[in-house]
Amino acid sequence: MPCNCEDDNGFSEHQNGCQLRINTNRTSTEGFNGYSKMYENSDTLVEEVDHSSVRYPDGTVRLRNPNIELMDQDILYHLALGSGSHDLVEMFGDVKFVCMGGTPKRMEQFAYTIMAEIGHKLPCGTTLQDISQFSYRYSMYKVGPVLSISHGMGIPSVGILLHEVIKLMYHAKVRDPVFFRIGTCGGIGYEGGTVIISEEAVDGALKNALELTVLGKTIQRPAKLDRRLVRELKGLADPEDPYDTITGKTMCTYDFYEGQGRLDGAFCDFTESDKMEYLEGIHKAGVVNIEMESLAFAALTHHAGIKAAVICVTLLDRLKGDQVLAPKEVLDEWQQRPTKLVCRFIKRYLQMKGRLSLEGHGSIAVKSPRRFKLVQQESENYD
Amino acid sequence: MPCNCEDDNGFSEHQNGCQLRINTNRTSTEGFNGYSKMYENSDTLVEEVDHSSVRYPDGTVRLRNPNIELMDQDILYHLALGSGSHDLVEMFGDVKFVCMGGTPKRMEQFAYTIMAEIGHKLPCGTTLQDISQFSYRYSMYKVGPVLSISHGMGIPSVGILLHEVIKLMYHAKVRDPVFFRIGTCGGIGYEGGTVIISEEAVDGALKNALELTVLGKTIQRPAKLDRRLVRELKGLADPEDPYDTITGKTMCTYDFYEGQGRLDGAFCDFTESDKMEYLEGIHKAGVVNIEMESLAFAALTHHAGIKAAVICVTLLDRLKGDQVLAPKEVLDEWQQRPTKLVCRFIKRYLQMKGRLSLEGHGSIAVKSPRRFKLVQQESENYD
Repeated sequence: MPCNCEDDNGFSEHQNGCQLRINTNRTSTEGFNGYSKMYENSDTLVEEVDHSSVRYPDGTVRLRNPNIELMDQDILYHLALGSGSHDLVEMFGDVKFVCMGGTPKRMEQFAYTIMAEIGHKLPCGTTLQDISQFSYRYSMYKVGPVLSISHGMGIPSVGILLHEVIKLMYHAKVRDPVFFRIGTCGGIGYEGGTVIISEEAVDGALKNALELTVLGKTIQRPAKLDRRLVRELKGLADPEDPYDTITGKTMCTYDFYEGQGRLDGAFCDFTESDKMEYLEGIHKAGVVNIEMESLAFAALTHHAGIKAAVICVTLLDRLKGDQVLAPKEVLDEWQQRPTKLVCRFIKRYLQMKGRLSLEGHGSIAVKSPRRFKLVQQESENYD
Repeated sequence: MPCNCEDDNGFSEHQNGCQLRINTNRTSTEGFNGYSKMYENSDTLVEEVDHSSVRYPDGTVRLRNPNIELMDQDILYHLALGSGSHDLVEMFGDVKFVCMGGTPKRMEQFAYTIMAEIGHKLPCGTTLQDISQFSYRYSMYKVGPVLSISHGMGIPSVGILLHEVIKLMYHAKVRDPVFFRIGTCGGIGYEGGTVIISEEAVDGALKNALELTVLGKTIQRPAKLDRRLVRELKGLADPEDPYDTITGKTMCTYDFYEGQGRLDGAFCDFTESDKMEYLEGIHKAGVVNIEMESLAFAALTHHAGIKAAVICVTLLDRLKGDQVLAPKEVLDEWQQRPTKLVCRFIKRYLQMKGRLSLEGHGSIAVKSPRRFKLVQQESENYD
């Protein structure tokens, strides 16, 4: 198989040992100061991601942190899991896809949706359980090879989760996982209900990197997403879908109101025309949507050498307003659109691998839906 | 009453019309560019907070955003409330204290704790309900004059909430509210279980301001907390408490792992000695704890002219380790300590105002706890 990492910014399975060179436009000279050995001190920023630094020879995830291997136990505090207390290989070793989204409710719904789509069945008398319920922070559901996890709102919240999920991949010896974020966003020039697959993430000043303060110094991590994955997802959009599925640049901000140029926050020191000038400027620069997590999602998965994609649905066109006004039923239907695309991807992958289970343990095995319904109704009458 | 705003950086009740001048050390010349009219273009940064810009003559909260008054309706999207759909004055007009903390569970517990402490009773046959349950993002409970709201993790999450809660204060015509954040943190030189009241918040580079990117430009907001409130809270610490209650500078970061100098994240490019050098450096600079929300909490409440305090309990001493290892029961007890202090403050305020209700509508009026227990047990035996 020819190595095409360079074209795709991605890591294909079994490409152990190949090297990935990424050229990033340096938009600023701040924050480097020779701090990170990853960055060359020249005009062009080159990050070398040596595949052997992110994968073991058998394809399992390797951490870019030598300390974890030496620890007696590693507590994934915000997930309520630990390498000493839980058999993480037994629990999570079969994971292939990690799907993340904002709220616990949406990710519980996603878990049940993907379960139906891939024909995964639970043993009779069981139901899905929130694996991280005792963390009271994130919710995590597992459906065969798919994890469905809520990440909360904003870069710090998704960042904590990514650190711990990437460590979970390592502890569980998962091979070449693929991460998806399914979410909502404001469209820039796109009506509510449009599905947007991010080509890359930029910050509020259009920089294609996540800035981090580490030990008091600013470092930057390129916020790259896997190009081939974007194309594959785009190819799964159904021409019959009654909405558009597009790709483009995603802006990620630290604030929903002033940070996204909204006039309706608790504070506002700019005018409608300042706002429109800004939004039209970023539109011209190729930004198609704004949300609050993609920068960390892209930068941390890329740094870990994990294939990742961000698929969001627009809740409004920000060139036309600030407030989300669509009725709840409409918003609910819109939010299922990114889910559908990710379901198609996972289903196709499992089909190709011959792992799409159309039979299995019967949880509630329904022979006749009509009679099943009748029995349920009868039963409800006897209090 | 003499005006002592300048000493306290705070807004006492009924001090309409007095002006507050705050001197902030400018640590950097970046990001101003004459953008915000609030900042003078000199070496000393001076923010003028005119009291009339944050309060109406009757003491109710005024927004520093002229657009909201002109809107037909304002949807507080992340709280599942709206000014057109809900009678916010009727629902929230009696609020005096807004208490925030990370998780829905902790803030539900806080609501029940403060209910018992202030003797607030619910009508028979009712229980507390999560007012924002349909947002699936934050949880909000109301107990008479106290709101208890979860803010999630990180600056963006608490920032969205603050914008909407400050707007809620305005719509509900609340007079001089006081905001508290009760949370957990890492201690710098303080054992797990120590209660820390923040004197001010600083970022990972020790800057006492929140940096925001607004319309592509960087602005800074001083992250000040009310000094008198700090002293009053400190004065309520009981010498009999089997733990210390101290005050100091709080560092607020955008990341829990690398951003707080932890060696146990998914990535780590520094050594144990780099980390210790950094932590000892910030310790010498007066930092006593690190968490992830205080910078936005201090900066946005200060900008809105709202008295606010941050009270956190340490879960470990970061000079001694990175992982939170205390058993769950111990952590649970520690997390009640900031709650106790805030309860004492609210109770004392209501006592002073003669508003501490020791009778009321009976929710479950218990005459004899022993017989009450017996009836419950008897009842459980009849399935």
